[in-house]
Amino acid sequence: MKTLPTTMRAVIATAPGGPDVLQVVERPVPAPADGQVLVRVMSAGVNRPDVAQRQGYYPPPPGASNVLGLEIAGEVVAKGRNTGHFNFGQMVMGLIPGGGYADYAVVHESNALPVPKTLSTIEAGAVPETFFTVWTNVFDRGRLQPGETLLVHGGSSGIGTTAIMLAKALGSKVIVTAGSDAKCRACLDLGADVAINYREQDFVEEARKATDGKGVDVILDMVGGDYTARNLKLAALNGRIVQIALLGGSKAQIDLGTLMTRRLTLTGSTLRVRSPEEKAVIARALEQSVVPLWSDGRCRPVIDRTFPLDRVRDAHERIDGGQHIGKIVLEVAS
Amino acid sequence: MKTLPTTMRAVIATAPGGPDVLQVVERPVPAPADGQVLVRVMSAGVNRPDVAQRQGYYPPPPGASNVLGLEIAGEVVAKGRNTGHFNFGQMVMGLIPGGGYADYAVVHESNALPVPKTLSTIEAGAVPETFFTVWTNVFDRGRLQPGETLLVHGGSSGIGTTAIMLAKALGSKVIVTAGSDAKCRACLDLGADVAINYREQDFVEEARKATDGKGVDVILDMVGGDYTARNLKLAALNGRIVQIALLGGSKAQIDLGTLMTRRLTLTGSTLRVRSPEEKAVIARALEQSVVPLWSDGRCRPVIDRTFPLDRVRDAHERIDGGQHIGKIVLEVAS
Repeated sequence: MKTLPTTMRAVIATAPGGPDVLQVVERPVPAPADGQVLVRVMSAGVNRPDVAQRQGYYPPPPGASNVLGLEIAGEVVAKGRNTGHFNFGQMVMGLIPGGGYADYAVVHESNALPVPKTLSTIEAGAVPETFFTVWTNVFDRGRLQPGETLLVHGGSSGIGTTAIMLAKALGSKVIVTAGSDAKCRACLDLGADVAINYREQDFVEEARKATDGKGVDVILDMVGGDYTARNLKLAALNGRIVQIALLGGSKAQIDLGTLMTRRLTLTGSTLRVRSPEEKAVIARALEQSVVPLWSDGRCRPVIDRTFPLDRVRDAHERIDGGQHIGKIVLEVAS
Repeated sequence: MKTLPTTMRAVIATAPGGPDVLQVVERPVPAPADGQVLVRVMSAGVNRPDVAQRQGYYPPPPGASNVLGLEIAGEVVAKGRNTGHFNFGQMVMGLIPGGGYADYAVVHESNALPVPKTLSTIEAGAVPETFFTVWTNVFDRGRLQPGETLLVHGGSSGIGTTAIMLAKALGSKVIVTAGSDAKCRACLDLGADVAINYREQDFVEEARKATDGKGVDVILDMVGGDYTARNLKLAALNGRIVQIALLGGSKAQIDLGTLMTRRLTLTGSTLRVRSPEEKAVIARALEQSVVPLWSDGRCRPVIDRTFPLDRVRDAHERIDGGQHIGKIVLEVAS
């Protein structure tokens, strides 16, 4: 067994702001607590909530590291008490409430999964945040069933691409919105049945046409604001709208008459604040329903670009620019 | 077997308006279609949707009678094809999409239940609309669990009194709002744990106090309008708000950030438009979970006043006045 260093590189935001507030600093290597393993990070996904944290809108929950990063892949190098799922040296991918942009990170072993042989180390680091999020919101909360129609706003995002692949693999029809023809094409290539360029077409009208007037059963929305009333208009009888981000604002004006007469459900959630036990429930569902899809190659994260950890500012420039398709990943070690 | 008359008394609204637009007219006795039985009506409940129909806001769904009345109790006097649950002369209580304020009414036998020996004929006619409504909204849609807290707005209404009794009998804590101290007292007498006079106290603050700051798990709301934002504020983590009427208006301004971070669900439904098959599912659930509560007397409808059918205008004056506690029932025959 190799000796572990005592310090490591880690990325923090020195003040709320743009990518230039990100700084690589020296931090002590964290010690795994009860139920946690220490992972030598090889890749770390970059996600929209990281941007919100950098901008000062999304502080880490109590007890979480202020180092950025919500997901990692790498090898297990130390174990806390009451652990036993993983071996030393085993490759795992894990969901964490912070601390991913670093050489080492601790993860509750119940919130980690073994890296399937079919996924590269880079791909594995891009899995947890979007797959946990899509599972808990589209399949648990939204109860999407085979044969139903899912509408995903922002179809080319990390969340969007994951939702397309999962919903298609599990038997649903998928409609997406995206902001350019290139993004729409990418979504169709991934299996989406219909892609709507929201800058040029009215998504309510187009999605209604695509469902023969019936509307869509589940809507995964990261926009909010005035999208919410439009989502309600578009939802099918017994439709579910699941809110996971608010890029268009948090205030919405809705018509409760539509909600009642069409028996709609408007719900939503955030993932980061949930307890390790709650996240473990999602991990077990992924193990059962999604591991087979990773293992036979039907589902794999779409990687937009990778950046070395030291170029984290460039990675954030890229996500801020909004031209990416799929996930941006930090390559921390090999 | 007695011969059936060919015509009967029936109540219609001659134009949108107040109670004086209601008129007792002569109508043919309806013939039971496939799956329906004909009931000689002995009692018919008066409900808020009847008022909305009288005012012109709530027309009967396609195929339903324009005679008012959504629930009846009485004896089976004729059967359509493909029936067989009930005997001639058996007392049943049934949910119907219209036609209840009359001497005879047809009901899908799957939407009817035998009248329990413990309930009077008057009580039986006051059962279907509120028990079907509360069951499908509080227990199905709202998924109220034993040990959870239910808030019912309008606790002294027909719906409110039913919700109090059912939720208490099934193991929940119940908080109600009502518009007078007398109504609050009536709710407490029925078993409500806490009653808030909304004219004098802020229900959000009071209900939060009553739950040690945790908020309520399920809210059954018939107000809407500016209540919706207040309901969202008051809901506990993972809380569900179920909208069943809009006495305060259909437009609501909501904060999606609250919805997401507290993982709330805002949903609602109407009952009348559902198919007989959908209503039958509710009837079977009532059979399983509520028949025992009727039979041992733990649950019985609260009767405010009865009126003979010919005094239907007085019955509507009474419901319009808003001073009633529990249900108003038309006594059609004995």
